Amino acid sequence: MAENEGVVKLLGFWASPFSRRVEMALKLKGVPYEYLEEDLPNNKSPLLLELNPVHKKVPVLVHNGKILPESHLILEYIDKTWQSNPILPQDPYQKSMARFWAKFVDEQVITLGFRSLVKAEKGREVAIEEAREIIMFLEKEVTGKDFFGGKTIGFVDMVAGSIIPFCLARLWEGMGIDMIPEEKFPELNRWIKRLSEIETVRECIPHREKHIQHMMKVAERYK
Amino acid sequence: MAENEGVVKLLGFWASPFSRRVEMALKLKGVPYEYLEEDLPNNKSPLLLELNPVHKKVPVLVHNGKILPESHLILEYIDKTWQSNPILPQDPYQKSMARFWAKFVDEQVITLGFRSLVKAEKGREVAIEEAREIIMFLEKEVTGKDFFGGKTIGFVDMVAGSIIPFCLARLWEGMGIDMIPEEKFPELNRWIKRLSEIETVRECIPHREKHIQHMMKVAERYK
Repeated sequence: MAENEGVVKLLGFWASPFSRRVEMALKLKGVPYEYLEEDLPNNKSPLLLELNPVHKKVPVLVHNGKILPESHLILEYIDKTWQSNPILPQDPYQKSMARFWAKFVDEQVITLGFRSLVKAEKGREVAIEEAREIIMFLEKEVTGKDFFGGKTIGFVDMVAGSIIPFCLARLWEGMGIDMIPEEKFPELNRWIKRLSEIETVRECIPHREKHIQHMMKVAERYK
Repeated sequence: MAENEGVVKLLGFWASPFSRRVEMALKLKGVPYEYLEEDLPNNKSPLLLELNPVHKKVPVLVHNGKILPESHLILEYIDKTWQSNPILPQDPYQKSMARFWAKFVDEQVITLGFRSLVKAEKGREVAIEEAREIIMFLEKEVTGKDFFGGKTIGFVDMVAGSIIPFCLARLWEGMGIDMIPEEKFPELNRWIKRLSEIETVRECIPHREKHIQHMMKVAERYK
């Protein structure tokens, strides 16, 4: 069997940006897959616990007996295994920088745009300004480009897209915060519009109202 | 100029495991480099702030005008650019798993073996047991293998080596804790001995007594 054949299964959760970005990659590459929805956070399936004993988290990709946890690793695996519509650059330096910005989103943007904001230990206005300072790095990075990946959607677009417009923005909306206003972040807003026009991306966006309610509940748990 | 030519500079800090692992890779691959020691944490050079404006952290690798922050990204770049003595597997799945364990070390092992241990909010004995539970995953992973990478030292060995025996163990020693006793962790102890026998690794190990003092000071700051 060729490396890119065989059944693909994805264990995910509808509101998890980490699951959504994996679906974006599978859809972009036209890989058929079976999706198994997990009931999180309190009713994890025995299969999930068996497949990801270390972290017990979604997403988990299963392909030809190989079990892959963690969205960045899964995206890299998908890109190597199904080579059409590449999502990572070939050049080692460009590839490193894509990984850098993806990590930046999952660490800095989530910390400032979610955890610190929800706790707001120094007050909500300070938390908003601190989150904006971090997001401004992305505004600069996408300036003059269609996508973070260049002319087409790539690794950073999937990571940042699943987190910012299609996850954190739902929380911000629920909290009544205009975090990335057009006048301060014109490039990011342009990028979000471009991203939302891609059919395979649109298919991965959680239902808005249900998602806002969900994010507000998650925020309550973190307060 | 070929991709693997040109001057290589590394901004590092003697006690930083993230710097040490990059030196391990450069030495293993026989890449000549200029090492620039930073005076951390309070006296960062203007060069560091200029090269790594997002995180302002070591290590930073500079090669042919390319600026690379973060040790995992640097190791991947080094492996692609200087291909002798490969440190990552070629197979996409094996490569993903190497990245998985490296991330596991830098997140879980550091959190449990350093932060939670130093704070010891539930008491020192509980903290030690929780750290051991996490480290036990590595004991299992290295069982029956010379190195995490197989027959030779690889990505996970450099990441875990720089953190566990040559960094956290210095803190544990300073705190009087026998965290990974031979009888509980025979495989990890065997691995540490093997690792310590490699000349290029030995060259990257910080001076023991100076390092213990340093780690105890760092721990004080985190309490």
